[in-house]
Amino acid sequence: MNEIKIFSPATVANVSCGFDVLGFCLDNVGDEMVIKKTTEKGVKITKIVGANLPFETQNNVAGVAALAILDAANADFGVEIEIYKNIKPGSGIGSSSASASGTVFAINELLGKPFNKQQLTLFGMKGEAVASGTEHADNVAPGIFGGFTLVKETTPLKVVQLPTPSELYATIIHPQIEIKTSEARAILPKDIPLSKAVKQWANVGSLVSALHTSDYDLIADSLNDLIVEPYRSQLIPHFDEVKAAMMNSGALGGGISGSGPSIFSLSKGKETADKVADAIREVYSKTDIEFDIHVSKINAQGIKIVKN
Amino acid sequence: MNEIKIFSPATVANVSCGFDVLGFCLDNVGDEMVIKKTTEKGVKITKIVGANLPFETQNNVAGVAALAILDAANADFGVEIEIYKNIKPGSGIGSSSASASGTVFAINELLGKPFNKQQLTLFGMKGEAVASGTEHADNVAPGIFGGFTLVKETTPLKVVQLPTPSELYATIIHPQIEIKTSEARAILPKDIPLSKAVKQWANVGSLVSALHTSDYDLIADSLNDLIVEPYRSQLIPHFDEVKAAMMNSGALGGGISGSGPSIFSLSKGKETADKVADAIREVYSKTDIEFDIHVSKINAQGIKIVKN
Repeated sequence: MNEIKIFSPATVANVSCGFDVLGFCLDNVGDEMVIKKTTEKGVKITKIVGANLPFETQNNVAGVAALAILDAANADFGVEIEIYKNIKPGSGIGSSSASASGTVFAINELLGKPFNKQQLTLFGMKGEAVASGTEHADNVAPGIFGGFTLVKETTPLKVVQLPTPSELYATIIHPQIEIKTSEARAILPKDIPLSKAVKQWANVGSLVSALHTSDYDLIADSLNDLIVEPYRSQLIPHFDEVKAAMMNSGALGGGISGSGPSIFSLSKGKETADKVADAIREVYSKTDIEFDIHVSKINAQGIKIVKN
Repeated sequence: MNEIKIFSPATVANVSCGFDVLGFCLDNVGDEMVIKKTTEKGVKITKIVGANLPFETQNNVAGVAALAILDAANADFGVEIEIYKNIKPGSGIGSSSASASGTVFAINELLGKPFNKQQLTLFGMKGEAVASGTEHADNVAPGIFGGFTLVKETTPLKVVQLPTPSELYATIIHPQIEIKTSEARAILPKDIPLSKAVKQWANVGSLVSALHTSDYDLIADSLNDLIVEPYRSQLIPHFDEVKAAMMNSGALGGGISGSGPSIFSLSKGKETADKVADAIREVYSKTDIEFDIHVSKINAQGIKIVKN
């Protein structure tokens, strides 16, 4: 195989109660990438469509991720990378991670699949660090593993793959405003009440159990974030109205996607997810903020090969 | 049915990372209780063997639990209760809860099983409050449900039953010292660092997932309590030595049972659990503190009928 085209999906990190730990993968929102072997070693970004991103390998998420995996494999070839962005940078649904995880997935295929998913996640994290400043797996892992993931630890990396209930759909609104990750971090308290932390880990535990048993009622009961959402939601205009509209339309629950500004919800069945989309469209249509809305099945497979 | 004899097992609450949320049920350590219908309404404690506990119904955990369920059922009979304690009060393995949950389980049988396990847990909590001052389900739920339980909320009560990996054994040492629950509560900080809380809920999530998949390695990785153990372990003599002995003998992990003084560990297989018992016996044999050691399979069934 000398060339591969892949689809690298958007992902939702944090997932309400699962701050810094949980994530899931979308199905129909994502970038495409074409990666070609070259006889010359090294990594060249040859094409970027749909976003204004740096072409210099060392400054590009995909470039750095590619170097990490090629170096670890001691590869006797280089690559040229074409990036077709559909996920808007800064949307909070894993735009940079999609470039990083897509790259390492594709190159692993070109190499003959020497690396497992934990290893691919580590290479992807190197790329992700170019965009976010730190190596984290919150969005990389759901792309590589598919479905729901729990990043138990980052040093050493330990990703736990969780089951995906078959009728679970996400509805996401991306208000096109900018939230700096640094600001989203700074707004969080350093210390939190033990009593609230206990409730949060009760919710994380019951959400994980509910994913294993496809218990939609328990998923709904568990999607409560007592710690982070009260702070970060202040940075997102009309958050409370959107959340109320989601819940009133039958969503199981929702919250901030990553560090925002996107807001996600989970629903049982596409019909409800579509209703949720209509309701939140109505909220944001009354504002002068541009927005995108996505309705997607949860993607249990993760990154997909389009052509090889 | 006019009379029933039941076995009400000891339970371990908190389970390392799962402070105030997780619990599990032991198999071969527990009380026996005989409960007889009487034509006269009301509850009489007629016999208490093995512990010095109050006979007055209102001051007795079993008495109050019995009144709660009989009242809710609007029963046309009363009961006489005989309690044969094997679980030492103050041991930290659910002595009072065993009396409370055993009572409500037994009376539910005498009533023809009108109540489900959530309801029985609520009645049991009324009894538990006599001993601990607050209605909590940490030890009541594992007795009623069996196996591992997650108390997601207490108001309204929501207990999530978790699966029990078949080769899981507990080894427990009960050093016969007194730790006041009030002291064990007071030693905890009101606020905790968000960064540690995130690690704790990552561990809770991965432990719950590991119970669903019988992943013993992941159980081992998850049994870490960064929040409570560093404080409460100070109240238990030789805690660090016991824990080191457990881990060196092949235990998956362990920690404080309830608010102590008992220390529990979990192992894969009885052989390892027995080795752990030998190792901790050696630690405490060098002290002048009296102690009991228990090795038990995890009891997936919970309270059992001995005779009816």
